[in-house]
Amino acid sequence: MAEPIFARVALVGAGLIGSSLARAARDFGAARAVAILDASPDVMARVRDLGIADEASGDPAAALKGADLVIICTPVGVCGAVAEQLAAYLEPGALLSDVGSVKESVVAQVAPHVPPGVHFIPAHPIAGTEFSGPDAGFSTLFQNRWCILTPPGDADPAAVDRLARFWTRIGARVETMSPEHHDRVLALTSHLPHLIAYNIVGTADDFGEDTRSEVIKFSASGFRDFTRIAASDPTMWRDIFLSNREAVLEMLGRFNEDLSVLQRMIRRGDGQGLHDFFSRTRAIRRSIIEQGQDTAAPDFGRRK
Amino acid sequence: MAEPIFARVALVGAGLIGSSLARAARDFGAARAVAILDASPDVMARVRDLGIADEASGDPAAALKGADLVIICTPVGVCGAVAEQLAAYLEPGALLSDVGSVKESVVAQVAPHVPPGVHFIPAHPIAGTEFSGPDAGFSTLFQNRWCILTPPGDADPAAVDRLARFWTRIGARVETMSPEHHDRVLALTSHLPHLIAYNIVGTADDFGEDTRSEVIKFSASGFRDFTRIAASDPTMWRDIFLSNREAVLEMLGRFNEDLSVLQRMIRRGDGQGLHDFFSRTRAIRRSIIEQGQDTAAPDFGRRK
Repeated sequence: MAEPIFARVALVGAGLIGSSLARAARDFGAARAVAILDASPDVMARVRDLGIADEASGDPAAALKGADLVIICTPVGVCGAVAEQLAAYLEPGALLSDVGSVKESVVAQVAPHVPPGVHFIPAHPIAGTEFSGPDAGFSTLFQNRWCILTPPGDADPAAVDRLARFWTRIGARVETMSPEHHDRVLALTSHLPHLIAYNIVGTADDFGEDTRSEVIKFSASGFRDFTRIAASDPTMWRDIFLSNREAVLEMLGRFNEDLSVLQRMIRRGDGQGLHDFFSRTRAIRRSIIEQGQDTAAPDFGRRK
Repeated sequence: MAEPIFARVALVGAGLIGSSLARAARDFGAARAVAILDASPDVMARVRDLGIADEASGDPAAALKGADLVIICTPVGVCGAVAEQLAAYLEPGALLSDVGSVKESVVAQVAPHVPPGVHFIPAHPIAGTEFSGPDAGFSTLFQNRWCILTPPGDADPAAVDRLARFWTRIGARVETMSPEHHDRVLALTSHLPHLIAYNIVGTADDFGEDTRSEVIKFSASGFRDFTRIAASDPTMWRDIFLSNREAVLEMLGRFNEDLSVLQRMIRRGDGQGLHDFFSRTRAIRRSIIEQGQDTAAPDFGRRK
């Protein structure tokens, strides 16, 4: 196996992403040692039982000692407070990063606490499942997934390159952009779809018990795919919507405008308009399959 | 294998559902012979190449001769015209059914053309993929899927039972309800989710080329699941929205109300409200898994 890229990676937060990073760093030899730090004693106990870290004492000083890469893997809402707590323990020359789904807010929260001589390079791996916690992680989560880096303008190119090699080693494809651009793109591709999925499942939940049980029974007709998205971690998603408020509200505004047009077509019986609209959206699906972001295998109404 | 339930099933329309029914009727021995009739000469030629029917001449008289079960498998919008064309060829005592995703409209369109002595029992199998046409069908499409029958009040119980046994034989689970109730439940579980998915993919498509290519690139973050739904057959879905207009508009109204509440929570920064909402929707997902309508296997960001 190739030489490890970091001597020691310290992961702060052992949820789905943090615990997957621990396993991946070890399995793909991206770091010589792995430390995990989580605010929850229960999670730390579970991390020790799972044996996915070399250092899991729960002590910040012990976790960050000798760490040349520190990755904050907490919900976005607390990353500023976490950075403040970690600051005193960061080694000179260390690289500080994160995995947050929102980048402008993370930069605003974390940057003020970064000590001189520490390289802060935010990152966002576009990978996940609807499950949470240290048991949900697995080392191949990042295979063939994108990881977006949003380095500040004055970032050390060598540090950016080293972080990119870390993500590449564990299977990801790396892309670089500004935090602002990241937040707009993700508002559309991720945050808005999650909001809509949560909303439609909520609409169903508002019906009485009889209807709700029928909705569950006949969910394979389309609804089911939304429930998977709407089963994602509530704390993580609360923080995303609060942290990327403006971009989400803008995308939601556009979505609502478009929905009004479809609604009017249905009300007026505009069959040609509906057919044209529904034909257009097929092309995007084809592009996604061509670019390897999904397979053309039909969904048989259930996963195998 | 058990005795076939029908001597001959005639399938009118050889799309995904019709061609799957042809294969299933044969593979599971639900009918002694299978006839297929499709208005498109190209489709009929393909049906003959695929060899999935015993009779595939394209002649209505030949297709319906001796058929004790005739199933209309066309888009909902043309089933009335199809029923009118078939009426003269229906055998006395035959059972006429369909597979439409909307039931009140099908009853209104088809019932006036049903000759005396023919049993008309509408049906809707909740099964499908995002692909269309005779090549897309497969015999196990209906395994463990629900098929809803909406027999009229004066239906012959023996005929209803026989149709139920046909669907059970090819793997489906059968449920009976009124057309009105069916249309309301499906508006929520199927029609609204499809409308929303089409809409969000359309919103993305409205952006310029640069953003669109980024949306495709980073689609694994949630958007991708919507594109699969929004790749469904445009003609079929146009007809569904036009045929189930009132129920769809009602469900859309509720959805919009709920979305306004979420939008306000985001704008006002109501973290507790968002967290409560997102926690509630997780419970519905658990029920769906418990009832065997999906598995708990995580979606790894791609299908295997």
